[in-house]
Amino acid sequence: MHKVIFDTDPGVDDAMALLFLHNHPEIDLIGITTVFGNAAIETTTRNALFLKREWGIEAPVAKGDGKTYNPMRNPIDWPVMIHGHDGLGNIDVPETIDLPLDPRSASRFIIETVRANPGEVTLIAVGRMSNLAYALKEDPAIAGLVKQVIIMGGAFDVPGNITPAAEANIHGDPEAADAVMMAPWKVVVVGLDVTMKTVMTRKRLAELTAQNGKHLKLLSDISQFYIDFYGQHVKDEGMVVHDSCACIYLIAPDLFTTRSGAIRVVAGGIADGQTIQKPDARSFPPGNWDDLPSQHACIGIDAEKVMALLDETLVR
Amino acid sequence: MHKVIFDTDPGVDDAMALLFLHNHPEIDLIGITTVFGNAAIETTTRNALFLKREWGIEAPVAKGDGKTYNPMRNPIDWPVMIHGHDGLGNIDVPETIDLPLDPRSASRFIIETVRANPGEVTLIAVGRMSNLAYALKEDPAIAGLVKQVIIMGGAFDVPGNITPAAEANIHGDPEAADAVMMAPWKVVVVGLDVTMKTVMTRKRLAELTAQNGKHLKLLSDISQFYIDFYGQHVKDEGMVVHDSCACIYLIAPDLFTTRSGAIRVVAGGIADGQTIQKPDARSFPPGNWDDLPSQHACIGIDAEKVMALLDETLVR
Repeated sequence: MHKVIFDTDPGVDDAMALLFLHNHPEIDLIGITTVFGNAAIETTTRNALFLKREWGIEAPVAKGDGKTYNPMRNPIDWPVMIHGHDGLGNIDVPETIDLPLDPRSASRFIIETVRANPGEVTLIAVGRMSNLAYALKEDPAIAGLVKQVIIMGGAFDVPGNITPAAEANIHGDPEAADAVMMAPWKVVVVGLDVTMKTVMTRKRLAELTAQNGKHLKLLSDISQFYIDFYGQHVKDEGMVVHDSCACIYLIAPDLFTTRSGAIRVVAGGIADGQTIQKPDARSFPPGNWDDLPSQHACIGIDAEKVMALLDETLVR
Repeated sequence: MHKVIFDTDPGVDDAMALLFLHNHPEIDLIGITTVFGNAAIETTTRNALFLKREWGIEAPVAKGDGKTYNPMRNPIDWPVMIHGHDGLGNIDVPETIDLPLDPRSASRFIIETVRANPGEVTLIAVGRMSNLAYALKEDPAIAGLVKQVIIMGGAFDVPGNITPAAEANIHGDPEAADAVMMAPWKVVVVGLDVTMKTVMTRKRLAELTAQNGKHLKLLSDISQFYIDFYGQHVKDEGMVVHDSCACIYLIAPDLFTTRSGAIRVVAGGIADGQTIQKPDARSFPPGNWDDLPSQHACIGIDAEKVMALLDETLVR
């Protein structure tokens, strides 16, 4: 069993990834920590509680601070055209959910849970990297106690999505992401190089919902608005399942090709939030990537098998 | 006939490109302007005069300023391990060459030659972009009078060569390159995405020299040191013919695949000197690539045919 803390900003594709984690028999979801990005921290936290209630998820929800690692960063507008005003595709999520939050902050929850399960916890982070960076700052030694960190974010050999240089999760808190990449733990970066190849079509989602509507009806309702947006940008009418890819990497790493090498994140300037890797196979004059841990950038994916595993797990 | 001003920092692969321009029957080389990069400006200018004399090239040589567009930039060490202390592979180039320089600066030469041949001049720039940027600054209207600008530089979907982010020509003067990319002229960027696929092996160069040693003997002598360096980094023992690719684009653009879109160059920070394109086929929120001319990044190459055209032209 893989013990997982899911750091998330639900978010439509976050909801799908959460259902994957909840459904998969080899995953023990031991905590949900919320971060801002797809919507404000109040909204993403409320949404996490909502999904926990609707899907009967046992894991506690701990709320993030909703602050970038560098507090001087200018705020970015929430992507309401993608995730809706409620962050879940404008399905009229109740304003409050009558479930308790974990009393700890997200970063505190991460630290204590990792320390209680040394060497066993995988962090899957699919929003901004703020909580992970705060946890590292508060307790740097957790880097040696985490099993691995799998993040959805970044773009290496392809353009970004919020700027030509940057992917939105990293762009939302570049200093946090840079701290995460440079820490001495294993980071696997599941970014746009691979996620853009994974599309759940509206048709397929309807077929899956017909097979097993128990939890999928809600997921399908949530996803329609996002598909309305993405439909203009992907080949078949569908949605890119960014966040699910990070969860699938945990279960089936063989479906991905990775490239090893130190990763840095640009902070400031026109490339703000860009992820740049120094491949281990290449040599360069001394510079900003030296003496850092080799991390793992996903550069290839067997998208067909990834989607099959997603389908199969969602209908469980 | 293509009228060409060759802006160059010879430089071993510059020498090969110069011989290509000199030999090709459809190219009228009307000027050589020197820039710094592979060596100091005094050295590259001396080398241009040396090659002009040895190969009987008629085009005048105008010397560049040897200053970055932003004068506050820190100087970078010359790449003596690639191009040798003399910039031409340590072949003991004479210290001075008894040939006159054009009395004008490189930027002035560019401006006056373009104005004298409106709509007819192609600028092929294979060093830092300093001279082109100074020419644009002195006389912005030349942008509308140049036929096209073909540069060797940059790296889009592949790592750089001087840092994981940046290619050396652009990295040597990022502010100049950014000005060149943003100007309202047609720029074709022949960068590492394609040039890294073009290798002249030591064996092939020897075969060509045996076929026609007249000018190739010198080129071959110049190239051995560079091949000694590059041999460690390319598959077959050989040299990447970066600068020749830019010249070949002029003659055979069909051998290249280009992607259109505004291009910006990062100035400062860890991605200093990186080229970033906003592909026209992609949409992004408002940002730093808006309202700029679409330029042309080479992202594919028929390397075999490119090398065949190079071979055939070098032995003429």
